[in-house]
Amino acid sequence: MINLAAMKTVKNPLLVTGSVAYDTVETPNGISKRQVGGSASYASIAASYFCKPSLIGIIGEDFTEKQIFETHQIDLSGLQSQSGKTFFWHGKYKNDFKERDTITTELNVFEHFLPSLLPSHQKIEAILLANIHPALQLHTINQIVNPKFIATDTMNLWIETARDNLEKLTKKIHLLIINDEEAEQWTNETNLRKAANILLEKGPEFVIIKLGPDGALLFDNHQERKISAFPVNEVVDPTGAGDTFAGGMMGFLAATSQFDFESIYTAMKYGSSLASFCVEQFGLKKLVGLDANSIHRRVNRIF
Amino acid sequence: MINLAAMKTVKNPLLVTGSVAYDTVETPNGISKRQVGGSASYASIAASYFCKPSLIGIIGEDFTEKQIFETHQIDLSGLQSQSGKTFFWHGKYKNDFKERDTITTELNVFEHFLPSLLPSHQKIEAILLANIHPALQLHTINQIVNPKFIATDTMNLWIETARDNLEKLTKKIHLLIINDEEAEQWTNETNLRKAANILLEKGPEFVIIKLGPDGALLFDNHQERKISAFPVNEVVDPTGAGDTFAGGMMGFLAATSQFDFESIYTAMKYGSSLASFCVEQFGLKKLVGLDANSIHRRVNRIF
Repeated sequence: MINLAAMKTVKNPLLVTGSVAYDTVETPNGISKRQVGGSASYASIAASYFCKPSLIGIIGEDFTEKQIFETHQIDLSGLQSQSGKTFFWHGKYKNDFKERDTITTELNVFEHFLPSLLPSHQKIEAILLANIHPALQLHTINQIVNPKFIATDTMNLWIETARDNLEKLTKKIHLLIINDEEAEQWTNETNLRKAANILLEKGPEFVIIKLGPDGALLFDNHQERKISAFPVNEVVDPTGAGDTFAGGMMGFLAATSQFDFESIYTAMKYGSSLASFCVEQFGLKKLVGLDANSIHRRVNRIF
Repeated sequence: MINLAAMKTVKNPLLVTGSVAYDTVETPNGISKRQVGGSASYASIAASYFCKPSLIGIIGEDFTEKQIFETHQIDLSGLQSQSGKTFFWHGKYKNDFKERDTITTELNVFEHFLPSLLPSHQKIEAILLANIHPALQLHTINQIVNPKFIATDTMNLWIETARDNLEKLTKKIHLLIINDEEAEQWTNETNLRKAANILLEKGPEFVIIKLGPDGALLFDNHQERKISAFPVNEVVDPTGAGDTFAGGMMGFLAATSQFDFESIYTAMKYGSSLASFCVEQFGLKKLVGLDANSIHRRVNRIF
C-alpha cells in the first residue's frame, strides 16, 4: 500500500479538463441550492489527495468559491474567468436515486469555452478529460506535447449527440471510463464483456465500466478485473460520484507514474473510496478536507 | 473459453467426499420434504458437468435416489450403503433467506462413516473435501497417494467445535473455501483482506471467501480477485449453493488440470454459474440435466 503522507511532497502533475458549475440538486430527502459542481471540480479535488491537479475550465464572474480549489493546492492558472454567469445545472433525483431528471441546464460562459493550455500544461503527461463535450476533450489533447496516459470520461448525451467526435477521441486515448448503461447504448450489446471488447476495438488500451453501487470493471485485451463499491450507509447526493471516481483514480496513477493494468486496478480502489465519501453529503461537502487515513481505511474494505 | 462439449470425452477424475442426505427445507414460500441433499451430492453433480466425480460417502437402506448420480455418470464405487437410515437434516429459512434454523439433524448411518478409498480413488490427483467433519476430511486425504490439488470446504460448526482438526487439515491442503462470516469467526478479523492473509498463513496456497449474493473473493499471497454472483430473479432454496459452487469450480479445474491462480479465477465463474441454477429451485431440481450452453451463458454474465 502506497504511503499517502509521503506522497504529499512528490506532487506529480495531472491535467484535468471539464466543467465547473453551480448545481441545484433535489433528492427525495432535501434540496441543496447552487452548490459547487461540475466534472472538473469533483475530479480535481479527488485527485488532489494524491497529486497536483491543474484545472482547465471556465467560470463566470458570479463564481465566488475558488478557495475550495486553492485549499486543495489545485493549480488554477488554466481556469478562465469570463464576464457572464457560471454554468448552472438543476437536477432532481427520484426512485431511490436510480433516475434523475434535468430541470434546467444554463450553459452561460461554458457556451464559449475553448480549453487553452499554457506551455506548462502542455507538457503534463497524465491527463484526465472529465466529462464535457468530446470536441472540447479533443481540443485539449491536441495541445498536449507528449501525452503518456490520457483517460476520458463521458456521458449518455455525447454518445447520442456527438458520436463522431467520441469515436475520433477514443482513437487517441489510453483509458475510456463509461458506465454500464452508456456502454450498452454505445455498443448495442447488453453483455458487458462483449461491450468492453467492442469499445477496446475503438482504440483505448483499457476500458473501465462503472456499475454504480456494484463497483466497476476493468478490461484490456487480455484480462478483466472487478472491484466492489464501498457500502455507504446512506446516499445523500450521488452527483459527481463518477467524476470523483475518475479523479481519484487518475490522481493516484499520476502520483505513481505507473499506468499498467495492475496499477489501474489498484488506483480504482482509491477512486472508489473517494466516491464513497462524495455521495454521503451534498456536493463537495464531504469530499473536501478528508484525511489520508480515512481514505485508506475504505480502500482496505474494497475488493 | 473452454469448450464443454469437447470436454465430455475427456472426463478427468475428481474425488469428492462429503455428506449424502435427505433434507426437509422450509422457506418463506414453501416446504420441500426429504429432497436429496448433502454437500457431496450437490458438489458431485455440479462437478459432473466438467469431469468424472467419484463420490465418497454413505447412505442408508432408505436411500432410493442413486439414479440421480448415475444419470450424471458419477462413479459410486465409493458410496457405502449401510443398514439404517440416511443422514437427515430439517432446516427453516427466515428473513429473506439471510438466516436459517436447524430444526432436526439425524446423523443416522453418518455416525459410523469412515471414508475408505479404493486403490483407484487413492490415485486421483484432484480432491474436493466437501463440507463434513474435518476429521473425516483428514482421514480421506491421508489415503491419497499423490495429491496434486486438494480443496476444502467447511462450516461455522467445525470452526466452533473442531478447530484443532481444521488447523491440522489446512496445513495439508491447497485451497480453503469459506464464507465471510466463517472467515471472521475463525480469524477474529472483520477485514476480509486481513482475514484471508491469516488463513493463508495456516497453510493453503489459495483462499476463497464466498460472499453469498455478492460473489466471491480469491486470494493468494500475491494478489486478489473478485467475481460477482449471477443475479438470479428469485431465490427458492439456497441449500447447497456453496457446495455447488465448490463442486462446479473443482470440476472445472480437474477437467483442465490447471490449478494456478488464473485458472481458479476462471473456474470460480463456472462454480458461480452452477450455484445460480441451484438456488432457483428446491434441492437438486434445477441443477440436474442442465445443458452446457445455459451454463456458459451465465458464465458470460459473471464478472
